[in-house]
Amino acid sequence: MTAAVHALINDNKIEAAMLEIGQAARRAAAELAIAEPGQKDQALRVAAQELRHHTSGIIEANRRDLEAAEEAGKNGAYLDRLMLDPDRIEAIASGLETIAALEDPVGKTIAEWQRPNGLDISRVRTPIGVIGIIYESRPNVTADAGALSLKSGNAAILRGGSDSHHSSVAILTCLTHGLRSAGLPADAIQLVPTTDREAVGHMLKGLGGTLDLIVPRGGKSLVARVQEEARVPVFAHLEGICHTYVDRGADIDMAVEIILNAKLRRTGVCGATETLLVDRNADDDYLSPLVKALLDAGCEVRGDAAAQAADERVVAATDEDWGQEFLDSIIAVKTVDGVDDAIAHIARYSSQHTDSIITECHGTAERFLKRVDSAIVMHNASTQFADGGEFGMGAEIGIATGRMHARGPVGVEQLTTFKYVVRGSGQTRPK
Amino acid sequence: MTAAVHALINDNKIEAAMLEIGQAARRAAAELAIAEPGQKDQALRVAAQELRHHTSGIIEANRRDLEAAEEAGKNGAYLDRLMLDPDRIEAIASGLETIAALEDPVGKTIAEWQRPNGLDISRVRTPIGVIGIIYESRPNVTADAGALSLKSGNAAILRGGSDSHHSSVAILTCLTHGLRSAGLPADAIQLVPTTDREAVGHMLKGLGGTLDLIVPRGGKSLVARVQEEARVPVFAHLEGICHTYVDRGADIDMAVEIILNAKLRRTGVCGATETLLVDRNADDDYLSPLVKALLDAGCEVRGDAAAQAADERVVAATDEDWGQEFLDSIIAVKTVDGVDDAIAHIARYSSQHTDSIITECHGTAERFLKRVDSAIVMHNASTQFADGGEFGMGAEIGIATGRMHARGPVGVEQLTTFKYVVRGSGQTRPK
Repeated sequence: MTAAVHALINDNKIEAAMLEIGQAARRAAAELAIAEPGQKDQALRVAAQELRHHTSGIIEANRRDLEAAEEAGKNGAYLDRLMLDPDRIEAIASGLETIAALEDPVGKTIAEWQRPNGLDISRVRTPIGVIGIIYESRPNVTADAGALSLKSGNAAILRGGSDSHHSSVAILTCLTHGLRSAGLPADAIQLVPTTDREAVGHMLKGLGGTLDLIVPRGGKSLVARVQEEARVPVFAHLEGICHTYVDRGADIDMAVEIILNAKLRRTGVCGATETLLVDRNADDDYLSPLVKALLDAGCEVRGDAAAQAADERVVAATDEDWGQEFLDSIIAVKTVDGVDDAIAHIARYSSQHTDSIITECHGTAERFLKRVDSAIVMHNASTQFADGGEFGMGAEIGIATGRMHARGPVGVEQLTTFKYVVRGSGQTRPK
Repeated sequence: MTAAVHALINDNKIEAAMLEIGQAARRAAAELAIAEPGQKDQALRVAAQELRHHTSGIIEANRRDLEAAEEAGKNGAYLDRLMLDPDRIEAIASGLETIAALEDPVGKTIAEWQRPNGLDISRVRTPIGVIGIIYESRPNVTADAGALSLKSGNAAILRGGSDSHHSSVAILTCLTHGLRSAGLPADAIQLVPTTDREAVGHMLKGLGGTLDLIVPRGGKSLVARVQEEARVPVFAHLEGICHTYVDRGADIDMAVEIILNAKLRRTGVCGATETLLVDRNADDDYLSPLVKALLDAGCEVRGDAAAQAADERVVAATDEDWGQEFLDSIIAVKTVDGVDDAIAHIARYSSQHTDSIITECHGTAERFLKRVDSAIVMHNASTQFADGGEFGMGAEIGIATGRMHARGPVGVEQLTTFKYVVRGSGQTRPK
C-alpha cells in the first residue's frame, strides 16, 4: 500500500484512494500472471510461519477488535466469529500451507486440438486478474481469500468488516512479508485501509475498470447488496435453500441417517437441508421414522397434514416455510407425489444450491440428477457435503449459485479464466 | 408466441409483453434442457428444409424490408447486409444442418473423480437457460443464433433490427415449424414481435430474472450500449484491435504473407490486424519489405518515423492511430524494441481480442504467448483465423473479449454451463 493511498484517505478522498488501490492491484496482477508457481507457494509458506511467529501480536490486535465489538453490544455468536486464539491462528497458518500445496492452475492446458491446416489450438488457464473480496467479521477470510487469490495468480483487494480491522491488518502484515520474501509485489494482496462504507460502493462500480470479479463473504444482506449493485461479475450464493427428497425406493435407515446429518450436523451452513420432501407413496413406512428421528434429535418440524398426522409434535407448516432458509434446528416437511412432484417443488423453491435424492432405484435417481437444475445435485448423500474441501478442491472462497463461469464450490481452478494459444507455421486464412 | 403477447403489444404494453415472452422462454428452456439430442437435430433439419421450400416467400418478405431501407436512404453496404437471395437462403439452410451435425454438448461429463469416502463427483454440462440475442440488419442471425441456442439446449429470445423484421419473421416461421415437428415447444425460439426500442431496454434489465445471458451482434454503438446497461452477463467484444508483431527472429517471407492476409483478407472483420509492430533490431531487413508489400497491395500505412523513412508513401501516424480499429485498408505501423516492448504496447492498446507474433525463435514466441493477455494469442499465423469455424467449433454466435465464462469464439459448448452430480451410497459428513 503506497503512502499516496494513505494520504488520500487522510484527506477523505476515498474514491481517489480506491482508484489508486485498483491500479496498484492491476500492476501487481500483471506480475502475478507470470510468476513462477514456486514463488507463490513460498510467499504462502513464509506467511504461515510469520503468522505463527506473531501469534501474540495478532491476538493483541484481535483483543482491540473484540473490546470495541463488546462495547458496541454485539452478541456472543458475533464475538465468537471475530475471536482469534492460538488454535485458530494455527488453523489459518496451516490453511495457507494447504493452499500452497495445491496444484497450480495457471498455465495448465485444458484442451488441445489440431486443425486440418496444421494450426495447433490449446486452451490454457490464466488468472482472472483482480478480485475484490468483501467480507464481514471473520478475520480468517483475510488470509484464506488472499491466499486463494494469490495461488490462482490474481491480485486481491480485501475489504474486511470494520469490526475486524485491527485483526485483518495484523494478518495482512504476515501475508505482505511472505510476498516480499518471495520477490512478489506487496500490492498483490491489499487491504482497504479505511472502514468507510463508501469504499464498498466504489468496489461495486469496478474501480475504474481495474476490478474483474467480486466475491462477497457474509450474511444475506451483504450478498444481496453486492448482487444488486455490482457492475462487475459476482461469485456468490444468496441463500442455501437445500432439499432432501426421500423416494419410495429409499433404504429407510440410510434416509434417516442422511437427513439427520443433512439438517443437524451444522444448522448454520449453506449446505444444510431446509426442507425434507417425502414420497407420498411411501407414506406409512417412511414419513413417521424420518419425522420422529428429527424430533427426537431436538429439531422443530413444520409439516403438512400428513407430517402432522405422523407425530403430534409436528407443528403446521405455513406457505412461508417452503423455501425458507432456517439456518437453525427447524425443518419443513412435505409429502409429494413421487419424484416428478419433488422436482417441481424444488424448481419452485430451491435456491439452486444443493439438492439430494435418497433412493435405491437407479432410474429414479438419474431422473432427479438430470432434471434438478441446481449447482450441486446429489444421490444418497448428505447435502452438507456441499463444500470445496469435501469436493477435494483443497479450499474454497465460497459457493456460487449463479449460472456463469463458476457454479458450486469456488476453488483455485474456478478463480482462473483461459485464453486460446494458436501455434502455426505461417498459415494464412483463405478467402 | 402467444396471442396474449400480441394483444399486449397492440395495447402498447411493451413491458408486460416482454415479461410474458421471458416467462414463455423460461418454460421452454425447462423442456429443452431435458430434450433428446435427436429432437433438437430434427428441428434444425426440418427448419432447413422449410427454408428451402419457402425461398420465394422469404425473398418476398425481404423485398419489403429492402424497399423500406432504400426509402430510408440506407447505403449500399447496408442494403447488401440486409439482402437475401436464393444462394444466401441456401447458405442459411445448410448452416442449420451443420449445427445439427455438431456433437451435442448437453449432458457431457467434463470432469469426474472419486473422493476417499466413496463419493463420485462429476461435472456435467447443462444449458445456460434463456439467451437474448440483440442484432441489427443481418436477417441470417435469426437462424444462426436461434439454432446455436437450440443446439446447446437454451431458449432464445431474438430481437432483430427493425429494418430486417419481415425477413426475420419469415425465417422464424421455418424454425418454429421445425420445433413443432420435433415435439419441442415453439417458444424455444421467439422473435420479439415489436420493433419498439423500449423492448431492448427491458431485455437489458433481464425480463424479470428470466434472461440469463445477452449476446449483442452488431456495431460498436449497439455493443457499447448493451455492455453499459445490461444487468445480466454479456458475451461480446466491443472492438477487435488486433496486433501482429514481427520479431527479429521472423522469416520475412512468412511475415509478409501473414501480414497481407491479417490486414487485407477482409478489412471489416474483428480479427483483422489493425497495428503492425516491427522489431527495431530487425529494422533494415524487415520494416521496408513489410511496409512496401502493404502499400503495393493498396493499403494506407500510417507509420512512426522509422516506417516513414522506409517508404515515402507512408504517412505520419498520430497518437490516435495506436489502438484504432480502422476496419478498412489502413494500418498503423510502429517499430518496437523487441518482444517485451511489443508486449507492453499490446497491453496498452489491444482490445484483448487476438494478437499474433511472427518469429522462428521458440523462446521469444513462448514469451509472447504467455505474457499477452488476450482471448486469442497466435504464433506464425494470421489474426484472421480468429473465428469459431476456423477453430473447429462448427459455428459461433460471436467472439467474446470478457474475462469470464466464455473468451474467444463462442460456439455451442460456450453456450452451456455445468452442474456437479454427486453419487453416494449413504455418506454423511463427519463433524
